[in-house]
Amino acid sequence: MDRHKKPFSGIKKDFQGRLQCYKQEWIGALCSGMRILAPTAYIFFASALPVIAFGEQLNRDTDGTLSSVETLTSTAICGIIHAIFGGQPLLILGVAEPTVIMYNYLYGFAKGRPELGKELFLAWAGWVCVWTAVMLCILAILNACTLITRFTRVAGELFGMLISVLFMQEAVRGVISEFGVPKGENGTAEQYQFHWLYTNGLLAVIFSFGILITAMKSRGARSWRYGTGWLRSFIADYGVPLMVVVWTAVSYAKPADLPHDVPRRLVCPLPWEAGSLSHWTVIKDMAKVPAVHVFTAIIPAVMIAALYFFDHSVAAQMAQQKEFNLKNPSAYHYDVFLLGIMTLMCGLIGVPPSNGVLPQSPMHTRSLSVLKRQMMRNKMVKCAKEGIKLEASNSEIFGRMHAVFVEMEPHPNSVVDKELENLKEAVMNRDDGGDAKGKFDPDKHIEAYLPVRVNEQRVTNLLQSMLVGLAVFAIPAIRMIPTSVLWGYFAYMSIDSLPGNQFWERLLLFFIPAGRRYKVLESLHASYVESVPFKYITKFTVFQLVYFLICYGITWIPTGGILFPLPFFLLIPIREHVLPKLFPGEHLQELDASEYEEYMGRPVQSMSLSRREGCDESMENDFEMDSAEILDEMTTRRGELKLRSSFNDRQFHVGSDELTTRRGELRLRSSFNDRQFHVNTEEMTTHRGELKLRASFNDRMLHVHRQNGSPA
Amino acid sequence: MDRHKKPFSGIKKDFQGRLQCYKQEWIGALCSGMRILAPTAYIFFASALPVIAFGEQLNRDTDGTLSSVETLTSTAICGIIHAIFGGQPLLILGVAEPTVIMYNYLYGFAKGRPELGKELFLAWAGWVCVWTAVMLCILAILNACTLITRFTRVAGELFGMLISVLFMQEAVRGVISEFGVPKGENGTAEQYQFHWLYTNGLLAVIFSFGILITAMKSRGARSWRYGTGWLRSFIADYGVPLMVVVWTAVSYAKPADLPHDVPRRLVCPLPWEAGSLSHWTVIKDMAKVPAVHVFTAIIPAVMIAALYFFDHSVAAQMAQQKEFNLKNPSAYHYDVFLLGIMTLMCGLIGVPPSNGVLPQSPMHTRSLSVLKRQMMRNKMVKCAKEGIKLEASNSEIFGRMHAVFVEMEPHPNSVVDKELENLKEAVMNRDDGGDAKGKFDPDKHIEAYLPVRVNEQRVTNLLQSMLVGLAVFAIPAIRMIPTSVLWGYFAYMSIDSLPGNQFWERLLLFFIPAGRRYKVLESLHASYVESVPFKYITKFTVFQLVYFLICYGITWIPTGGILFPLPFFLLIPIREHVLPKLFPGEHLQELDASEYEEYMGRPVQSMSLSRREGCDESMENDFEMDSAEILDEMTTRRGELKLRSSFNDRQFHVGSDELTTRRGELRLRSSFNDRQFHVNTEEMTTHRGELKLRASFNDRMLHVHRQNGSPA
Repeated sequence: MDRHKKPFSGIKKDFQGRLQCYKQEWIGALCSGMRILAPTAYIFFASALPVIAFGEQLNRDTDGTLSSVETLTSTAICGIIHAIFGGQPLLILGVAEPTVIMYNYLYGFAKGRPELGKELFLAWAGWVCVWTAVMLCILAILNACTLITRFTRVAGELFGMLISVLFMQEAVRGVISEFGVPKGENGTAEQYQFHWLYTNGLLAVIFSFGILITAMKSRGARSWRYGTGWLRSFIADYGVPLMVVVWTAVSYAKPADLPHDVPRRLVCPLPWEAGSLSHWTVIKDMAKVPAVHVFTAIIPAVMIAALYFFDHSVAAQMAQQKEFNLKNPSAYHYDVFLLGIMTLMCGLIGVPPSNGVLPQSPMHTRSLSVLKRQMMRNKMVKCAKEGIKLEASNSEIFGRMHAVFVEMEPHPNSVVDKELENLKEAVMNRDDGGDAKGKFDPDKHIEAYLPVRVNEQRVTNLLQSMLVGLAVFAIPAIRMIPTSVLWGYFAYMSIDSLPGNQFWERLLLFFIPAGRRYKVLESLHASYVESVPFKYITKFTVFQLVYFLICYGITWIPTGGILFPLPFFLLIPIREHVLPKLFPGEHLQELDASEYEEYMGRPVQSMSLSRREGCDESMENDFEMDSAEILDEMTTRRGELKLRSSFNDRQFHVGSDELTTRRGELRLRSSFNDRQFHVNTEEMTTHRGELKLRASFNDRMLHVHRQNGSPA
Repeated sequence: MDRHKKPFSGIKKDFQGRLQCYKQEWIGALCSGMRILAPTAYIFFASALPVIAFGEQLNRDTDGTLSSVETLTSTAICGIIHAIFGGQPLLILGVAEPTVIMYNYLYGFAKGRPELGKELFLAWAGWVCVWTAVMLCILAILNACTLITRFTRVAGELFGMLISVLFMQEAVRGVISEFGVPKGENGTAEQYQFHWLYTNGLLAVIFSFGILITAMKSRGARSWRYGTGWLRSFIADYGVPLMVVVWTAVSYAKPADLPHDVPRRLVCPLPWEAGSLSHWTVIKDMAKVPAVHVFTAIIPAVMIAALYFFDHSVAAQMAQQKEFNLKNPSAYHYDVFLLGIMTLMCGLIGVPPSNGVLPQSPMHTRSLSVLKRQMMRNKMVKCAKEGIKLEASNSEIFGRMHAVFVEMEPHPNSVVDKELENLKEAVMNRDDGGDAKGKFDPDKHIEAYLPVRVNEQRVTNLLQSMLVGLAVFAIPAIRMIPTSVLWGYFAYMSIDSLPGNQFWERLLLFFIPAGRRYKVLESLHASYVESVPFKYITKFTVFQLVYFLICYGITWIPTGGILFPLPFFLLIPIREHVLPKLFPGEHLQELDASEYEEYMGRPVQSMSLSRREGCDESMENDFEMDSAEILDEMTTRRGELKLRSSFNDRQFHVGSDELTTRRGELRLRSSFNDRQFHVNTEEMTTHRGELKLRASFNDRMLHVHRQNGSPA
């Protein structure tokens, strides 16, 4: 992401870079055969469910003008276009929550003006899309994507928290609405009598809490003790859609005496009914929009363009984290340009536009990295075994494996070289001991030396988008889902997005008494907890909380709420000019590094290192812990790497020698920085020789306290 | 518990032993002042709630003849008698589930016979109590308590599992019953119309799952990260009664349009109403019981006597575990004799008798040990500080502390001497280093050298019993509790009783694939997991499961079910004569040691050792982890010590030197036996110097596999 000065230069560079690997991206996918279906199914369910939920939300917000049919259609069309013509195929597109919120405000504005009204809402929204498309294309042409680096974590976290709170608000509102008569329904109907309304509400409470709790539990299935690996993986990957199916089935286990409409189910027109076909011709209505409103459309367009520009680029960034060792170049400028074109198309056919979605894009990359690993391992083991059968020497075996490695990894670099060297060392040294157990066994030993690689191709997202398109024809099945299941799902999405958000974690820190903070230090924690005095953590978090409340307050303003993205953009100058005056530089950097700085600071080999630590070669067969489980431990459920907080992450500077004592024991794994190793060993034990494990954490806490006490 | 031959000799010895400390047990309690109220309140709530629940269960089973009024009365009367005249004041008495089940069968029998009927049920039950009392007294006189040692864990676990399953059955039955018209009610009343029945059922589902989930969560409150220590302790100690109050309050947050009886609440006559007063005169009716039924009463009496004898003695054993370093002697024979007398009294006034209850008795001891610790610490710190103020020498300070220690610990023995020596060493060595941090600080250092001691007195259980008696007058408040809250509470009791039951843990082991068993080894586990081949674990567990299903099946037989304790007594000869033929001796001993062997094998100092490990002296102030939290880690929620499995428990034979490496680091805490220390250190690291932590677990797993493969 260098800063280019000439217009179009970014797009051009992106296009040329991508063109070179375009063919390989189709061929590579075909080589993986049927295995490609696993990540496809995974990402399909992960993306289809929110799109359906947002469709139902839109349906309520727009009095039925838009519904799941439109959100699914938009996701499918944009996804297919992006899979074929897009620059960064790891990116997953879909209708996202900000779009839904924006369309809610657009509808509110249009409905309140007689010259537009419900009839011309989609036409006016079409104009908004036109303006948005123009702005996005201009941004791409002017190489504005470099601006992204000026967004720091504080903005991303606030935005994430806002979405999370809005999800929870939707969930709570939804459950409460189940106790009342729906908008525009006849209150005298049997199912709207008090006792059935109350029954419907109670069922909603049961179903929404039921899906929330079971979906949350299913997240961690991969590390469960019980059940076979296949079952646990299945539940971990498909737990949430599975729970939607299960609770939908449970909702049909109701006594026959219950009215047909209790519990309530999704409202969604069938796509082949006349009502849904009518508004595909929105483009004809656009001419009817009064001229003044063609221009009022510019205001929401500015907001949407900025939001999309931000969201799309960040999603692309998250899908292409450095730690995944991607080979193909990025294409930020080109993809924003394409996004502009797709937004225009969506506007003209009257569906809400799609953009890069955040949890799903890194999830996609993660699922492909597991796949790539399996393929590489199988091929190398096969080749090494052939060598062993032929009684080839170790160096010959390594030569064969090297050839396979290079075949699958056509563009070597320094990281790859290092990995090959480790593998070579492993193969060569195996016979040194002379006894059987030291023998090189490809089945067991190769896995430990395989780096994280991602199968970069275009078939998974093409298939995923096509499946989303087909889901439009599954509307009759989708309509069987009780609405209360969706409210539970919104609550799940809300809670699921919190871990990893440091704003949230810092808020929680306030509820931990000083004497219990060692518990935070004992577990995985971001570095600011240790390095930044608690006083500054408090100050920064209170600032963020107040700012958040302002943002949240804006969303409650009926039409002015459309400006809700504004404060997030205001954060750029605030972060650059105001915050450095309030916080010492080093603390501010720990608390709020820009995404860009964070990516740069993290050494590339971190991911494969951890992999080796977790899974040792001698136990590969009996020790059942697959790549996906290790990735689960290292990434959040949303595919983001945990602990991306600190760009001077000391953990990775500690050499492997330093990590173990002379006796080969691992030094206190639970703490990440090297300060603890400077503690005198005498101080670490009582005079009875017992370890003061907790005392050493405590020492550091005292240190923090002292800093708190000192003047700023 | 030596085997005495002369009748009465056991009772006599118990009586004499207890007489010596009787006065001290009253004075000691008065010395602790108001602090005694904390364990009193704790044990009151822990014992009152199940008694109320069993009362409701009895009320349904006996068509209202007995209810919570009678169970509370019985618990109060027996508790007060036991507190004043009982031998072992740590024992808590109450109406227990086996009594309720027995009374259910007794009622079924009486109701089915016209010559008895509902009217003479209590009179006939009175005869059962008379016979039971006679048998219990005979058992006590003949010193039969030594028989207890012939009960092995397999019997206790089966019985525990049966009670757990019966609790769950009661919970499920209860919730289902909320969807139907209650027995003996008028089905045409408004609240029994379909829609209100269904509403009532849905509310029951919400309340029972609500209390189950929240009560389970509150159990672990003491180790939560969030909240102050006081709040966490409060929730951990009183979480379950608190949740009953909370959910009862929630049940009143209902719309005004709901009928008054939805949700249903506890049915319990007011104790001062005529209906409940009538049957206190049961003794007069006993003469009306036909002669033949005076003798049929012998059969249930045999069962109840055997059950009580077993239950009462095991509860006393659990309340007086060796690890609590109790000073006062036991009094098994005397207490069984007294139980006989109390059973007689209860029978004559027509209330179900009470006996020693199992979760509550060890919980009582545990709560008193925390109290004693606090008192001792305060007194010694105060005295040491005075010494420091007077600039006394270290040996003078120790002299003062020694005096306090002896004052509070009037009967020194070898364990106490050892502890004093450690304390002396700590006081004396403190100034060796010469610098300030080495200085002896009584606030910080004394705690680490205080052993676990229990405040053995009679006031907590006297007050607790009196409070239970007063609870009879709180019946109007108790009647506000929704029945569905009780069903949730039954489910909670069922699930809460499972951890620590090795039968249950072995059943779960079947659902763990072989490759995941390292997860069991990584966490706290019983020794049989490592030492017994999986083949024998399977065989033993299948035997236990089949036997359990037989026992459970018997409870379903309408009148014959009264014999349900029989199979448990049959287990004594089976264990002694059949099982040794099926399993090699050493494996059988690991899988099923007698309680007696287990107690003997565990060295006494284990508890204070672990205490020191967990909480080091230098961090006493900032590091917030109180005695109660450490006890939580070491005992199950029910006050039983975790891991009492193995009587050759290697963990405790490892000296403290062996526990740490030369560098003062603690050796792999997660595994308890010393086998791992024989593993060559070269084998423990990869050639890159990384620790094969999991590999070493795996080695052992492989060992087990190999044993499985070999012929038996």
